[in-house]
Amino acid sequence: MAKDMFLLWASGSPPCWRIMIALEEKNLQGYQHKLLSFDKGEHKSKEVLDINPRGQLPAFRHGTNVINESGAACMYLENQFKSHGNQLIPSDQAEQALVYQRTFEAFNAHQKMVDVVMYAFRVPAEEKHEATEKRNKEAATTEFQLWEGYLQKTGPYIAGKNFSMADVVFFPTLALAFRLGMRQTKYPKLGAYHGFLKDRPSIKATWPTHWLQEPPLKDPLKDV
Amino acid sequence: MAKDMFLLWASGSPPCWRIMIALEEKNLQGYQHKLLSFDKGEHKSKEVLDINPRGQLPAFRHGTNVINESGAACMYLENQFKSHGNQLIPSDQAEQALVYQRTFEAFNAHQKMVDVVMYAFRVPAEEKHEATEKRNKEAATTEFQLWEGYLQKTGPYIAGKNFSMADVVFFPTLALAFRLGMRQTKYPKLGAYHGFLKDRPSIKATWPTHWLQEPPLKDPLKDV
Repeated sequence: MAKDMFLLWASGSPPCWRIMIALEEKNLQGYQHKLLSFDKGEHKSKEVLDINPRGQLPAFRHGTNVINESGAACMYLENQFKSHGNQLIPSDQAEQALVYQRTFEAFNAHQKMVDVVMYAFRVPAEEKHEATEKRNKEAATTEFQLWEGYLQKTGPYIAGKNFSMADVVFFPTLALAFRLGMRQTKYPKLGAYHGFLKDRPSIKATWPTHWLQEPPLKDPLKDV
Repeated sequence: MAKDMFLLWASGSPPCWRIMIALEEKNLQGYQHKLLSFDKGEHKSKEVLDINPRGQLPAFRHGTNVINESGAACMYLENQFKSHGNQLIPSDQAEQALVYQRTFEAFNAHQKMVDVVMYAFRVPAEEKHEATEKRNKEAATTEFQLWEGYLQKTGPYIAGKNFSMADVVFFPTLALAFRLGMRQTKYPKLGAYHGFLKDRPSIKATWPTHWLQEPPLKDPLKDV
């Protein structure tokens, strides 16, 4: 069934990783895939642009259906394969409300992290200001403190007592944040959650290949 | 049924407007609500913070379930009230794939618009650079050109032949973009789509109250 699925991905990209975790959770192993490199500019190749006109990874196809946005692909997989593997959106009304809320909130966390990282690596030096950098870091800190608080109230998973879509979407962002210098000692609950989830089969099976071999080159999130 | 729903909202805020359109589409009229003012800082009031710890609008509650993220609330309403009003996520596999894709892509469009608007209104003058402003505007232009292309291929609605969740999420962003100076002559398909949808009952009933009375004060998107 997964043989008519095709994923173009990059190692360590949270949006790509989300889809890979969702595929594992839904027992949709055996999909076709190809690892590409941002460093080599392969996300702007014709192969990607034919599926994703944004020239971004992931590029994902199920048969002739193209669903490139990671949140969209995860929702689609859950909806189309309801009885497969693990249920990622619970049926219980209160649990469902919390899972939807945390799932969409996770995109805020991702954006706040990206704002800091992009400012460090992409904004030309002559356009940089300490005040902007400080504001971005404060916003990311406030954001991750919110999540630290969520785990205090409703762990062990990020939306309560079961693994859910919210973990699929949030975990890759958190893992990247820790890799890029955010300190587990500053966010003990998030650190414990990260340690607890990294051995989950769906996450272990999809752990970014190059993270296993190479240490991070920089730590733009060390003050967050 | 909608009596146990409560919405705190601000006029002209696309995230608030999305929930209001979804409520209309699902025939969930009669919900409790209260209009608040960003200008008066009411989004940081205790009333909001008690529901939404981010101090943002919308703040939305269904019974004891809190779902503040607009995308989350819209998905929740669709899922909890499947047989009510209009179906916003189609059952057909190919249509569903496209609706999920466009729904999540719409958050990109919103972010690109917000980047331009925030740079104009929120970044202190001493931190501004023409190059950054230009880059933000180019990114927003590229984004809205993508959507212009989508309508050329798969109109009349934003994800094909039927009104869907993608319209609920995208339309308020587009309407605000036009109000803030983006020109319909530059995006004729988006302009026609805007003209076609603004008379839809769910949208007409929820049109930002102050837009009817006041002209826009500024046009930060005039070059987009």
